[in-house]
Amino acid sequence: MINFSLNLKTRIHFGKGAISNLISELMPYKRILLVTGSGSVKKYGIYDTVMTELSTAEKEVFELSGIKPNPSIDSVYAGIKICRENNIEFILALGGGSVIDAAKAIAAGMVYKGDVWELFLDDSKFNGALKTGCILTIAATGSESNKNSVITNEKTKEKLGLRNEALRPEFAILDPTYTYTLSSVQTSASIADIMSHVFEQYFSPTKDAYMTDRLSESVLKTCIKFAPVLLKDPENYEARAEIMWASTIALNGLLSFGKITDWASHMIEHELSAYYDLNHGIGLAILFPNWMKRVADESRLWKFRDFAINVWGFSPTLGDRDLADVSIQKTREFFNGLNLPSKLSEVNIDDKYFEIMSENVIRRKMNGTFKVLDKEDIMEIYRLSL
Amino acid sequence: MINFSLNLKTRIHFGKGAISNLISELMPYKRILLVTGSGSVKKYGIYDTVMTELSTAEKEVFELSGIKPNPSIDSVYAGIKICRENNIEFILALGGGSVIDAAKAIAAGMVYKGDVWELFLDDSKFNGALKTGCILTIAATGSESNKNSVITNEKTKEKLGLRNEALRPEFAILDPTYTYTLSSVQTSASIADIMSHVFEQYFSPTKDAYMTDRLSESVLKTCIKFAPVLLKDPENYEARAEIMWASTIALNGLLSFGKITDWASHMIEHELSAYYDLNHGIGLAILFPNWMKRVADESRLWKFRDFAINVWGFSPTLGDRDLADVSIQKTREFFNGLNLPSKLSEVNIDDKYFEIMSENVIRRKMNGTFKVLDKEDIMEIYRLSL
Repeated sequence: MINFSLNLKTRIHFGKGAISNLISELMPYKRILLVTGSGSVKKYGIYDTVMTELSTAEKEVFELSGIKPNPSIDSVYAGIKICRENNIEFILALGGGSVIDAAKAIAAGMVYKGDVWELFLDDSKFNGALKTGCILTIAATGSESNKNSVITNEKTKEKLGLRNEALRPEFAILDPTYTYTLSSVQTSASIADIMSHVFEQYFSPTKDAYMTDRLSESVLKTCIKFAPVLLKDPENYEARAEIMWASTIALNGLLSFGKITDWASHMIEHELSAYYDLNHGIGLAILFPNWMKRVADESRLWKFRDFAINVWGFSPTLGDRDLADVSIQKTREFFNGLNLPSKLSEVNIDDKYFEIMSENVIRRKMNGTFKVLDKEDIMEIYRLSL
Repeated sequence: MINFSLNLKTRIHFGKGAISNLISELMPYKRILLVTGSGSVKKYGIYDTVMTELSTAEKEVFELSGIKPNPSIDSVYAGIKICRENNIEFILALGGGSVIDAAKAIAAGMVYKGDVWELFLDDSKFNGALKTGCILTIAATGSESNKNSVITNEKTKEKLGLRNEALRPEFAILDPTYTYTLSSVQTSASIADIMSHVFEQYFSPTKDAYMTDRLSESVLKTCIKFAPVLLKDPENYEARAEIMWASTIALNGLLSFGKITDWASHMIEHELSAYYDLNHGIGLAILFPNWMKRVADESRLWKFRDFAINVWGFSPTLGDRDLADVSIQKTREFFNGLNLPSKLSEVNIDDKYFEIMSENVIRRKMNGTFKVLDKEDIMEIYRLSL
């Protein structure tokens, strides 16, 4: 187990009606920026509920709406402008991971005097952030309780992350009923995203983090059990609750405790999202089984053995090679069973940028740890995914 | 899954050498009360390491030493006196759960104007606490990152808990090497304590907390795997690290997420500790298999089924009754295999106070939820344990 510091400060309020905790959480603040997405929160009434709470508590609310998936740096600039003009004290995100990531970037940009994008290029320039909180409406990214913000710069075709403890939200309101209206494909893509976060931490060169790995398997088994339930019954409270809590645990730091992590697949996907308008979860569902296939050589079969037996329930009597093969195949079939695209060609992506995207992953030194990928490895993962 | 609020604010610094984080954690404070136990920290050099750090950082250190297992309210009074006379700003606990619990009680007593014991009798009187941090030397109680303090009043023969978010330590330094010198019986009793914390949350009337239960099983499996390693090799870093992290996760709130919890066995043990000088972990190792035996009737076999299959690896082809019986037997054998006493008579406890202790558990309304115990149930659990 490697040394580790862990800070899980985000206060979680979980369950139907958890919004009742909003006002006490916002007590110290008067001037609030509310960040929202594409409008579904308005369509389904959650926005009205939140605005009523804020108005009852006599908050001065300023709004930034229209944050899109793969949130753009331009929307972050717009948020910073509102904050500066109105002396905003607190940023409240109402939405999914993209909205929360945008809120965090705005919070950092309020404190940083230069162009906030510089922080994404060089995080040593980070010098603090406004406090944030969130009301989650899509369970996927784990952004509700972690220190990460991922922002896309459309001009430079870069999708980059910023990580700092100061970006961890003060609180997260997790009401599973807020995710009832997600479409089948949104739900499935979100679950693929959650599982991929676990994979990035589970498939690691660290061999001696026993409990952490068992915790990871618990989260994967939860996704595997409840994803099919939601395909048939999108308003199943228990299934929505389990998936929502899984999304938080998957990426709050608990599953990387004592471990080196990988994250190459995320960078390989980030390159795709930077060049194409691709849903992050769908990209990961397409890429991950092919990443597994590429890295599952002799020296790494030990990990696939755990994965096959403990997550997928295969028999320990099978050999390591077989266990790797069946677990990878099972993962692929599972994502297919969630009605997600299984090939990049299905989402109109061809091999045009494979070479430059592969070079970008290497250049950013985000080419993995479980297997340190070279350019040919990454090219091959893209090609297998075509 | 029931509604839940969760606050895991304690910053964890984990691993060999984690003490290097102490000074930055103590930055805002000048006048510090250092609380320690029976002297083993001095014997093994940890005390010197800590004092050197504190002295380098020019802290003014006041000391309260000699905190005993089942810490007494008198030691808490002594700590409050030192704090008040010296305008202490921060309380640093160096030791195991007893030392940390005493530090928390002192922290509460510094703010409360009346007799601090009143808070244990009526927690509605709680009105804040000084900040605390800890350096852990025994992995058992989980006190290093939770909001609980358990204190014994020898005069009134009461062992009571106080729970409040303000009691959660600001930070916990967890260096597994600090537990190398624990005796075999201390190690085994600590592991029994950790497992019993999981049992209190795992055996619950809540049927729909799937992921939480899988996380609990992960912690139990970790204890089961590494306890025998430590019996043979007390300086095995990985085993000490896994057990230390298990102790924290077992009782920081994660394993009760979305669940009603039980805690009757702890109250049954607290009564024993209040009347006799009994090690908490040993008491729980004796009592728990007998609690299981008493509550494993038809309506609760579903839970023992999970326990038998997922924790102990029994075959799902066995019937529910058989699975309950074998899992209880296996639990009993496991504790025996750790060289712990298996009967109260072995630790010089007879049936003299069984009736009054049973009545006390009922009177305090801590008689469980998985099965709501009546007086006869509790009497029988004591008798089975004789």
